[in-house]
Amino acid sequence: MISALDTVAPQDRRELLESLLLKRHRQAFPTLASKAFFNFGAQGLLPRPALAALLSYHDEIERAAPLSLEGVAAMLLTLRRSRAALAVELGAREENLALVENASTGCNIALWGIDWQPGDHLVVSDREYPGVREAAAAVARRFGLTVTPWRIEGASDRQLAGLEACLTPRTRAVLVSHVPWDTGEVLPLAEISALCQRPNGSRILLLVDGAQSAGVLPLDLPALGVDVYAFPGHKWWCGPEGTGGLYVGPAALAELSPVFVGSRGLTFSREGVVTGFRADAARFEVGTSSPALCSALAAAVAVHGEWGTSAARLERIHKLVLRLWEGLGALGPRRVLRLQPLPPQAGLVFFRPHGIDPQALVLALEARNLVVRSMPHADCVRASVHYFNQESEVDELLAALEALCPQSREQRKEREPRLSNG
Amino acid sequence: MISALDTVAPQDRRELLESLLLKRHRQAFPTLASKAFFNFGAQGLLPRPALAALLSYHDEIERAAPLSLEGVAAMLLTLRRSRAALAVELGAREENLALVENASTGCNIALWGIDWQPGDHLVVSDREYPGVREAAAAVARRFGLTVTPWRIEGASDRQLAGLEACLTPRTRAVLVSHVPWDTGEVLPLAEISALCQRPNGSRILLLVDGAQSAGVLPLDLPALGVDVYAFPGHKWWCGPEGTGGLYVGPAALAELSPVFVGSRGLTFSREGVVTGFRADAARFEVGTSSPALCSALAAAVAVHGEWGTSAARLERIHKLVLRLWEGLGALGPRRVLRLQPLPPQAGLVFFRPHGIDPQALVLALEARNLVVRSMPHADCVRASVHYFNQESEVDELLAALEALCPQSREQRKEREPRLSNG
Repeated sequence: MISALDTVAPQDRRELLESLLLKRHRQAFPTLASKAFFNFGAQGLLPRPALAALLSYHDEIERAAPLSLEGVAAMLLTLRRSRAALAVELGAREENLALVENASTGCNIALWGIDWQPGDHLVVSDREYPGVREAAAAVARRFGLTVTPWRIEGASDRQLAGLEACLTPRTRAVLVSHVPWDTGEVLPLAEISALCQRPNGSRILLLVDGAQSAGVLPLDLPALGVDVYAFPGHKWWCGPEGTGGLYVGPAALAELSPVFVGSRGLTFSREGVVTGFRADAARFEVGTSSPALCSALAAAVAVHGEWGTSAARLERIHKLVLRLWEGLGALGPRRVLRLQPLPPQAGLVFFRPHGIDPQALVLALEARNLVVRSMPHADCVRASVHYFNQESEVDELLAALEALCPQSREQRKEREPRLSNG
Repeated sequence: MISALDTVAPQDRRELLESLLLKRHRQAFPTLASKAFFNFGAQGLLPRPALAALLSYHDEIERAAPLSLEGVAAMLLTLRRSRAALAVELGAREENLALVENASTGCNIALWGIDWQPGDHLVVSDREYPGVREAAAAVARRFGLTVTPWRIEGASDRQLAGLEACLTPRTRAVLVSHVPWDTGEVLPLAEISALCQRPNGSRILLLVDGAQSAGVLPLDLPALGVDVYAFPGHKWWCGPEGTGGLYVGPAALAELSPVFVGSRGLTFSREGVVTGFRADAARFEVGTSSPALCSALAAAVAVHGEWGTSAARLERIHKLVLRLWEGLGALGPRRVLRLQPLPPQAGLVFFRPHGIDPQALVLALEARNLVVRSMPHADCVRASVHYFNQESEVDELLAALEALCPQSREQRKEREPRLSNG
């Protein structure tokens, strides 16, 4: 068979084919018809198959009648499929996964679920998202805990030494992001988990916010040794708002009590009498949630799987992120200050524009159909790069930055030791 | 203008017209094309305009790009409109309404949000939904509370005397349903609220589960004097699963602390620094939820409003419920035991079939496209009747019961004093 591709020189064929496939894959995301989108760390783009799954669920339920025998079967099958699809992505068993409305709720379930005693100790990294940080503070107030901020700095050895110095005999949990939302580095969870294992066999619970890692990094949570991993569905995984999950590993499942309680997390006898909590992580689920949204999330995850493995997708993220990071370097520190000294390890790239307020720059970029976000507390801009961004979009972003950021006369040093903590 | 209606005798015209309008109104609910549906107390039917609103939201957001400036505006406007639409239905101000995933979550927010001290006292009615009852039990365990079950029996005077006998100087909250899920009576909230007001001016918080009242009864929560009112969106209001609200009146807003905490309930400075909790009830909201679902709920509420006022809808519910209740009476206690001694006050009708297990009866009815639910703990069947049910559907249900419930030879007394408590 002779195709149009055969007219292309063999050495260019592979690249052309890849770009054609990507172009076609991108058609699943309506937004991309008119925008270059770099804000997946805030919220992803809902692909058409996810919306189709959502509609299909409602159609099926309304045809069967909600909570009729047929309706219940359709609902339970949808929930089971969604849970299974997510569990695979985490390397986890379904029984260790609770479906929750968002990652914050997941973090709260873990934080409140510990049987805290006054004077117990909690370590919270200094790179946590404000909402999660405040959740920890609320728990600390309610139960009279002491809290130590773990200052994450330097390379992983220094990070781990920093954590070790925070731990006390009363430490019961460590709260940290897999990929901090305002530095984008990948923290060494397996090594952190090892520090949480006490010589006497007991464990400090390792609670992880996966907001910027789920849907970006290949995950094997049991291998990483995390106890709890909360993640959103609507960011890198491109599911709808109002979806997320909570991985609860065996140690945490044994230790955490359900806080908010509802019939979804309970077991009943045939006579309708409550017999206790479910044995699996669904014990942390509370009341009626939307199976339609879960199904949409599973469909979004499947869209990514159709492109390639999580390792292949991360490889592409790395390639694009490097292109952006190097391009920022080429623009020079008199135009934009690149805030990561080494190539970014996940999908987040940070830079501080010169001579223009970050928020003003974000608006100016939006006017050019380029979507990024500002980070007010760190006086910088964050670009979130996904595997289905295009090289040409990265180049567009760089060109727009060149046009919008006036070159300063003063020389600034390119590397700052860390993002400011606002 | 001469229409087909003019050929009908004037005395029949009004009734015919009403039934034609209802038939047309019912076309908004796809399920009704093939089923007689009496299960609104478990889950309602999603009307087409609600699904359209859901789609329209996603379309709008994906066109604008999520969390872009345009995207944020679309999202906030959607949330504001939804909140406003629900607030109107409650007779409440928007600032007293939090949007939550379901009623159980709302009850938990209130129960956990009290600054409980060991030995504090909580009164829980004996007619609460198991999930909510277990939530109260979990809070009691965590904070060392004493709990008194308030046995609701007799007419309202006796009910109120029963509550008064439960109150102690340490009582901090009373938890009760507006319409209990397994008796269907309407409890006298205003009088209950008056008992919660202490002579010294302090208040026992009145926490209400509105699962079987919201979308059924006309509501004016400030006039009823309730402090907290949690309600689902997906039952009588016919919104999608995963929607609900929490009314938090002024006294409760001053007394309750947010439990689960996330950025949605916080305020930030221009520099992105957390400055505290929001002043309004949105302080109890945690993380990203689905504005699409909220918008769908508001659209469902609007569908009902297009039929008539909440008072007019309740009048129709009363009429249909009376038809069913009287019909059950006519079938006689040797076929079905009617469990409400007086005509039901809201949308719930209970009966115990004779000679057939309630669950088996539910399945047999479903095979005839009649949807009700069984109540295993009370060994009975519950039919939920909404204003847009038809008289003919009630008659179908009665005819099916006549066919399916064998007439027993033994005489049973029609009235049992109360539903058993499983």
